[in-house]
Amino acid sequence: MAVHDHPVDERALVAWCDAARVAARRLAPLDRADKDAALEAVARRIEGSMDAVLAANDADVREARAAGLSAAMIDRLVLDPKRLQAVAASVREIAALSDPVGEIVGMRRLPSGVLAGQQRIPLGVIAMIYESRPNVTVDAAALCLKSGNAVLLRGGKEAKRSNLALGELVRAGVDEAGLPEDAVQIVPPLSREETKLLLGLSGKIDLLIPRGGEGLIRFCAEHARVPVVQHYKGVCHLFVDATADLERALAITQNAKLQRPGVCNALECLLVHRRAAGAFVPKLQALLDAGCELRGDEAVVALLEGVKPASEDDWGEEFLAAVLAVRVVDDLDAALDHIDRYGSHHTEAICSESNGHVDRFLREVDASCVIANASTRFNDGGQLGLGAEIGISTTKLHAYGPMGLTSLTALKWIARGAGQVRS
Amino acid sequence: MAVHDHPVDERALVAWCDAARVAARRLAPLDRADKDAALEAVARRIEGSMDAVLAANDADVREARAAGLSAAMIDRLVLDPKRLQAVAASVREIAALSDPVGEIVGMRRLPSGVLAGQQRIPLGVIAMIYESRPNVTVDAAALCLKSGNAVLLRGGKEAKRSNLALGELVRAGVDEAGLPEDAVQIVPPLSREETKLLLGLSGKIDLLIPRGGEGLIRFCAEHARVPVVQHYKGVCHLFVDATADLERALAITQNAKLQRPGVCNALECLLVHRRAAGAFVPKLQALLDAGCELRGDEAVVALLEGVKPASEDDWGEEFLAAVLAVRVVDDLDAALDHIDRYGSHHTEAICSESNGHVDRFLREVDASCVIANASTRFNDGGQLGLGAEIGISTTKLHAYGPMGLTSLTALKWIARGAGQVRS
Repeated sequence: MAVHDHPVDERALVAWCDAARVAARRLAPLDRADKDAALEAVARRIEGSMDAVLAANDADVREARAAGLSAAMIDRLVLDPKRLQAVAASVREIAALSDPVGEIVGMRRLPSGVLAGQQRIPLGVIAMIYESRPNVTVDAAALCLKSGNAVLLRGGKEAKRSNLALGELVRAGVDEAGLPEDAVQIVPPLSREETKLLLGLSGKIDLLIPRGGEGLIRFCAEHARVPVVQHYKGVCHLFVDATADLERALAITQNAKLQRPGVCNALECLLVHRRAAGAFVPKLQALLDAGCELRGDEAVVALLEGVKPASEDDWGEEFLAAVLAVRVVDDLDAALDHIDRYGSHHTEAICSESNGHVDRFLREVDASCVIANASTRFNDGGQLGLGAEIGISTTKLHAYGPMGLTSLTALKWIARGAGQVRS
Repeated sequence: MAVHDHPVDERALVAWCDAARVAARRLAPLDRADKDAALEAVARRIEGSMDAVLAANDADVREARAAGLSAAMIDRLVLDPKRLQAVAASVREIAALSDPVGEIVGMRRLPSGVLAGQQRIPLGVIAMIYESRPNVTVDAAALCLKSGNAVLLRGGKEAKRSNLALGELVRAGVDEAGLPEDAVQIVPPLSREETKLLLGLSGKIDLLIPRGGEGLIRFCAEHARVPVVQHYKGVCHLFVDATADLERALAITQNAKLQRPGVCNALECLLVHRRAAGAFVPKLQALLDAGCELRGDEAVVALLEGVKPASEDDWGEEFLAAVLAVRVVDDLDAALDHIDRYGSHHTEAICSESNGHVDRFLREVDASCVIANASTRFNDGGQLGLGAEIGISTTKLHAYGPMGLTSLTALKWIARGAGQVRS
């Protein structure tokens, strides 16, 4: 079966998982060259069949417009030749990444004389549930292939035709390279009840990655009997210390808040040391001038005209818009307490020239990425040198932060002896 | 509050988790010396208060005998001065292990100029649900302390008094060293309904580790809304290849099956290459002589008197006793297929002088530990150089195999810049 369609019952889901398992077993021992050849074939297929994908996408977009989806949603959905070219380029970038599978770490001779260490292996069968852009279909498939995993892709219903068209091309490329096409299966958009069935397939799915709004992720976490990596919201803070270089602090604030306000590593709350407030807060006029709304505590309101009074609800809020909460704090400890209480374990930053404060901040803040003297926007798989990312985890189990290829693998123990037994 | 008692409602469980969180925040930035000092104080308290622990244990044992618990269960429960001395020694061994927290890996300058890498941090709050020996209470507390985690310990009701007495000593030692005593909390034996409440505390517990029978682990996996590391049964195989050194193969079989038949890394099924069967199967007389029951397929039954015919149920069975299933297979692929179908991803071994077959087996078998030419009994935290283990995972997320100190930590990203912003 090529790509799957309704109706979906538990038997169908199990059959797809079983087909994925068979494919995963064939992928696991492959050498890098075989996987890279498949990815190159996928990239070529996408470049060679743009018209078919664009036609499918056009139908999705027309339906989305008719259904009254927001302009932002439609912008995420739309494909054009340039975006498709970028999708193909991204597949080639994933092919160019080194293959984590097979890596052997910590091999050493133990007191028993047995030589033992760990070897990196694929997880097996990944399921991905996502709402957003059709390019995720190809990116996720490419990352799973490269790391030797089979994947079930369940995209959003608004992108159904686009995902199917892209999925067919991916499968054709995989098949052309002699790999099992069931390594990548496109699951139709599922109802909540059907999704619950999928989430319940304990033992059939090694990792579920949900990507989308908080509602989707909470639904998956609530109903999953399979392992889930969770990414809740990004409520990112920047603490401007008493010793901060204020021009740097302003540039970082502007970049972190305004470069792309709708993403999870954008800044949501600025904490300003009381001794820096008098000099720094007036500089935030630049954000007001750029159309950013500022919501401050009393001290901030007193220092800069145009700042609206913040309410308790503004602390810990993920605005995902050109809105920034601003608070004056007494010292580093107060900043750490605020972050501990209102942060979301995503990205937290400090701007400080005090080496001791930077060290404490980096060490003590519990977040997937803790940054000193740079923009929160650097918490990103590409920026951190992972290549593409398949998701981002804000919980500590298995992965914490951007998940690249290595996060799609595990380490098993291997041991070589010469007849040793335990005494 | 020292150690907790009934009644247990959700509010009480949340309060204990919150106290653990406060303690975890104090533990996280500690240096190794502070944690080791607390462990030394714990070891001294145990050595100095043996009478109190033995009296509590005696009461548990008497109640267990009156309730008709099996001799094996009672043997696990009983403490004596020698066993308590071993418990204290084990705490000192954990103190002597290097501290994984704070380790920085992969720090490098990225194209943006930002210096980024990952730093190892504690998970936070661990909950452990276990049935077995009272020494687990101390071992688990020591491993969690050393790795900077707070822990809630819920032991079995048959060991209630012993666990409370040991827990008091651990907490006193922790307090004596100036660490927060709520780093270690002894939760009373919980009913199934109370356990469900604990398993549902999403966001309050960073990792749940169940240790015990398959029923307990399935119950935890089914009801958990917190991350769980799962360890199901150990159905371990040994494949004796055509080229195997048969004396080695016999010694490994005897050790793996009979040294301690009731443990999860004991051998349950022997797969013999058809070309080795004629010479090897008769050697299994040594196991029959040692009182081991053999259940074989037709070929095995024909080669050795005293072998009982195996039924389909014997493949994939975890006997946990001096019973071994034996099957003749045509080749390495047939052995791999059998293991794929009946294995439990715990420990799988090959005995072979063929380098190619050893390589394929090590690479292709999906198990937490894959062993060539040595006993399955080497899949053990101590044997593999981890020091003590807090559990063993047969699923791939976060940890696969024995879980030592490092499995109780996570890596967060840290980044240091000089004012960089994203373009």
